[in-house]
Amino acid sequence: MAQAIGRRSWAIADGHIPAWSHGPEPQMTSHEALCVLNTSDSEAHVSITVFFTDREPIGPYRVSIPAQRTRHIRYNDLDDPQRIPPGVDYSALVQSDIPVVVQHTRLDSRQSENALVSVMGFAE
Amino acid sequence: MAQAIGRRSWAIADGHIPAWSHGPEPQMTSHEALCVLNTSDSEAHVSITVFFTDREPIGPYRVSIPAQRTRHIRYNDLDDPQRIPPGVDYSALVQSDIPVVVQHTRLDSRQSENALVSVMGFAE
Amino acid sequence: MAQAIGRRSWAIADGHIPAWSHGPEPQMTSHEALCVLNTSDSEAHVSITVFFTDREPIGPYRVSIPAQRTRHIRYNDLDDPQRIPPGVDYSALVQSDIPVVVQHTRLDSRQSENALVSVMGFAE
Amino acid sequence: MAQAIGRRSWAIADGHIPAWSHGPEPQMTSHEALCVLNTSDSEAHVSITVFFTDREPIGPYRVSIPAQRTRHIRYNDLDDPQRIPPGVDYSALVQSDIPVVVQHTRLDSRQSENALVSVMGFAE
Repeated sequence: MAQAIGRRSWAIADGHIPAWSHGPEPQMTSHEALCVLNTSDSEAHVSITVFFTDREPIGPYRVSIPAQRTRHIRYNDLDDPQRIPPGVDYSALVQSDIPVVVQHTRLDSRQSENALVSVMGFAE
Repeated sequence: MAQAIGRRSWAIADGHIPAWSHGPEPQMTSHEALCVLNTSDSEAHVSITVFFTDREPIGPYRVSIPAQRTRHIRYNDLDDPQRIPPGVDYSALVQSDIPVVVQHTRLDSRQSENALVSVMGFAE
Repeated sequence: MAQAIGRRSWAIADGHIPAWSHGPEPQMTSHEALCVLNTSDSEAHVSITVFFTDREPIGPYRVSIPAQRTRHIRYNDLDDPQRIPPGVDYSALVQSDIPVVVQHTRLDSRQSENALVSVMGFAE
Repeated sequence: MAQAIGRRSWAIADGHIPAWSHGPEPQMTSHEALCVLNTSDSEAHVSITVFFTDREPIGPYRVSIPAQRTRHIRYNDLDDPQRIPPGVDYSALVQSDIPVVVQHTRLDSRQSENALVSVMGFAE
């Protein structure tokens, strides 16, 4: 039905899981989501590497996206090899074995109303 | 007056119609809009395919944009072949027979003040 | 000091001046701004064409950006050849005689707290 | 672990440090942040030039990003060669000796709830 679209390498420079939240969980919990679309007919195997200000990168976090599916992954939930601490600046490099499309969205509910921000990743 | 500009294939990875709303309708109803600009002298015929986490894609939704016109289409209003459920993660692939420019915007009024987010699509 | 950077043709698909406002003017007046950066050593002459859903495009609006200057232009203030009505969907095509960088930002204060959204234009 | 990704020249057209704030400092202080990711094995040396509406550009501000690190730099904190005044429109040109990824984010807490906006820079 649909042609495959995307790139294999993506980067997001501004990562930061807000350190506190207001409002009903889980929808209003402050979080960041990595949204990966795989329009192809094959499963995509994605590796996420997370970079910090003053420590070594951690990763890869490994995620699979079945053919013709999307996954919206909360960074808050990633725990292998380790959790990403809230309130800390980071960046992410996303590498896939086949082309995918990557978008990064933050919901910040540190104040009583939520704020949203989203960017398409930078595609190499 | 204006030269044609755009691409024929676009993708948005982070789609999600917020599941509830506050404030006056229809302006403050939580929604997502697909904004398509056709600067050319010909009508553009656009097909939208919507991808999900755990089910087959649905589509194509078909939309036409007359020459030198823009259309801001609420996903909430698409119903052929079927409605997109609110509160569900999705992605969209937008394909046109002639070059167009595609931008995707969410208004989230789940809390009493609205939040906005917008991205230019990823263009192949 | 700085090398010139940019493109000559840019488009923004999602234009919409929110129809009402809360908060102190002029900062919190609902508006959209076209931000144009000219890093070159020459003046840039920019033409803005505005596209609508159901009427002919209007323009060009003409704006000059001196060498090594930026201009953040509120669409609300454009009035030659005519004003852009608030509460109406539009798109914009921005064409320059030399490369510039174009970004589009909306401040929406229809509810008592403001929401912000911004995209880099799509560059041809 | 990770391949290097990015470009050497980036621009952001819409810069503006909101002139006042609400909420706890430093998290909720109105600010703009330049987020720079260096995925390479070498230190990146970055020069930031800031452009204004009606005065000469200032800069370069010089920042280094170690190999495989990210830095999220508040424009509010830059003071050499001089501070960037709040409430003033500006643009930024970011140049690096090796490829980096650049994203620009504003937190606006002029009203009691914060608004967020972020764009990937325009990459030459």
